[in-house]
Amino acid sequence: MKDIDYNALAQTYQTPLYVYDLQKISSAFLSLKDAFRARKSLICYALKANSNLSIIHHLGTLGSGADCVSIGEVRRALRAGIPKYKIIFSGVGKQDSEIQEALQSDILFLNVESEKELQRIESIAKALNKVARISIRVNPNIDAKTHPYISTGLHENKFGVDIQQAKAMYIFAKNSLYIEPVGIHFHIGSQLTDIEPIRQAAKKIAQLAHSLIALKIDLKFFDVGGGIGIRYENENLISPYDYSQAILEALYGLDLTIICEPGRFLVGESGVLLTRVLYEKYNGDKRFVVVDAAMNDLMRPTLYHAKHKVECFDKQDLESTPCDVVGPICESGDYLAKNIMLPPLAHGDLLKIENVGAYGYSMASNYNTRLRPAEVAVQNGNARLIKNRERFEDIISDEEKLLENVGHIDSHSKGEL
Amino acid sequence: MKDIDYNALAQTYQTPLYVYDLQKISSAFLSLKDAFRARKSLICYALKANSNLSIIHHLGTLGSGADCVSIGEVRRALRAGIPKYKIIFSGVGKQDSEIQEALQSDILFLNVESEKELQRIESIAKALNKVARISIRVNPNIDAKTHPYISTGLHENKFGVDIQQAKAMYIFAKNSLYIEPVGIHFHIGSQLTDIEPIRQAAKKIAQLAHSLIALKIDLKFFDVGGGIGIRYENENLISPYDYSQAILEALYGLDLTIICEPGRFLVGESGVLLTRVLYEKYNGDKRFVVVDAAMNDLMRPTLYHAKHKVECFDKQDLESTPCDVVGPICESGDYLAKNIMLPPLAHGDLLKIENVGAYGYSMASNYNTRLRPAEVAVQNGNARLIKNRERFEDIISDEEKLLENVGHIDSHSKGEL
Repeated sequence: MKDIDYNALAQTYQTPLYVYDLQKISSAFLSLKDAFRARKSLICYALKANSNLSIIHHLGTLGSGADCVSIGEVRRALRAGIPKYKIIFSGVGKQDSEIQEALQSDILFLNVESEKELQRIESIAKALNKVARISIRVNPNIDAKTHPYISTGLHENKFGVDIQQAKAMYIFAKNSLYIEPVGIHFHIGSQLTDIEPIRQAAKKIAQLAHSLIALKIDLKFFDVGGGIGIRYENENLISPYDYSQAILEALYGLDLTIICEPGRFLVGESGVLLTRVLYEKYNGDKRFVVVDAAMNDLMRPTLYHAKHKVECFDKQDLESTPCDVVGPICESGDYLAKNIMLPPLAHGDLLKIENVGAYGYSMASNYNTRLRPAEVAVQNGNARLIKNRERFEDIISDEEKLLENVGHIDSHSKGEL
Repeated sequence: MKDIDYNALAQTYQTPLYVYDLQKISSAFLSLKDAFRARKSLICYALKANSNLSIIHHLGTLGSGADCVSIGEVRRALRAGIPKYKIIFSGVGKQDSEIQEALQSDILFLNVESEKELQRIESIAKALNKVARISIRVNPNIDAKTHPYISTGLHENKFGVDIQQAKAMYIFAKNSLYIEPVGIHFHIGSQLTDIEPIRQAAKKIAQLAHSLIALKIDLKFFDVGGGIGIRYENENLISPYDYSQAILEALYGLDLTIICEPGRFLVGESGVLLTRVLYEKYNGDKRFVVVDAAMNDLMRPTLYHAKHKVECFDKQDLESTPCDVVGPICESGDYLAKNIMLPPLAHGDLLKIENVGAYGYSMASNYNTRLRPAEVAVQNGNARLIKNRERFEDIISDEEKLLENVGHIDSHSKGEL
């Protein structure tokens, strides 16, 4: 595996720039697939982590399916070449039009998150004269011990239904002409670093699966969600082997295909964000390194207080001192790293922000009228552009047309324009 | 002033939908302009709060200038018809290409935030054979008593330079052939609700202005930044009159034009976000109202723990109970309001989230492949679309073209695609 020449990429594509190493994505995918080799399994990549078509396509060539949380993501999966029978549609707030299109697209199943949603799915399926394959997301009320914003398996979270509700919904589904319950689902959170909550949740949901099968509900899939963490700092990691063992144990005696929905685990470590130093400055004793990337490009530090390693390419022989790495956006929340050690830096120096393959570009915005960065994928030493840097003309054109229309109507009132 | 028919707007333009009342923007602008009537003043609207061209244009017709924090915002201001002599360019991380374009556009001045930036501006101005008009942002080291993410006037924040540095920079600027120091600037934070920090900062900076004028530095502008708060819940408000008095007091004996950079104050209360209920659900005792807007449309609740009032249009005679209003995005951080009182709601019911004219749409993203909402402006009872809802084809087309290119190269390796 050739080293990636980040300096050359920054030169060619400019900064800020997302760079993904497809080889790392392949390794992560294959390690997980291999851990489940004893059983039928389907890995459905959670697109929300990074929904670039080329990333999805790459995972598709490895055999991955897709876990989607909007009809936009379902369309992305299909456009990237994921077969429809490997696509599932999850999420707590599906719109009627989304349910309709998902049923018409004939994807594997919809993960249902409430009684009301199940009723709507039934009525939409009926109107389409189709049978909706569904799975029900059960909320096991287990603390996943992660950041509260990405913890999802407690009753205080909006996700899923409790075990009693789930039973009633499965019975309703079994008795409906337009619903076919094919799976059972749980997902307790993201960036999990402790196997125990997963083990407990899998056991609890497997017990429920047993009792549903006893009720002649013909389950085929056991969907264990995603959430396996990666190492940003010095987190404990769950190995794919321990993960699969915890789930296989729980599944003892159940002949179900395992579905797993990793996002961050597959793509998180593959990505770096390249950014150049604009200025160094001191306010009092405090040192700031101002760079050309900002919170609009990478939201995780300010939103989740996430810590991403930052490395420079030269000057490693110079003495490092503490600094904050901050972007050009006009708020103090705009930082990429706080209180980290870096050598003295000058205008134009290149920095690499690590482990940003997941929830990096996918959360980017145009805040402060900043253009979203370009994205590049590297495979076998070859780099290729997978998304162009946004252009100002593209982001302004719709507003400009709509304002021009007004111009014709009230040009007399435009004052000094 | 006619009431806005939100039900009709939601029907016509669908939800989620941003609706702005231009009359409220006019009132806020005129109240502030009036408060400063005793002195020469220029109100420069801070585009980052809401950078829709039609909003900028509307403020421009009232006489507003523009405070910009990226070259994209400078372009927006020019496209919206703001005269170049009313445009200033602020921000802690200006790129070379941005400085160059700003100088070529001949805007009023650049607010400079560090010694290194001043040096770069000089060398770029020299290369263009132009004189760069500048103002220096002085960090008064005063606690603005607001959310840490939007507090900017302390040395621990990245913004501005301290008073000693500022003096040295003004002397450097005065002696440069390519720099003309015309203004002095401070800005201590956003959503300010206490006049005292502003009064103290204005005094401190006015003292500095006196000593600079004694050094024969020919200041023309006293730029007091923005930051006047609005009422989201029951915050104390700073009245335009008290605000202007605090500044006029500090300016006693100084013949400078006041520049003021309000963003939220001008547009915050003008905007609502309309959203429809998808489902109600209970997890245990906890009630959730799932709506079709999400954190990608309105980031403030999850990012700043901001509280926005939520109102429903009917059912006000029914008993309200506590609930969380949450969106369809797959994380617990996706909420719009927590623990508020609402009557029982059903699929399709319309809700109005208030005071979202500032830092609403401007921070929106495509997270979870959600399309950014449409925006509508209402004036004299007439509604007009000022931004179309995004279309899936538009957000995917670039990635799709780049993936197709690959297809031609390695179609043999595409596996089951």
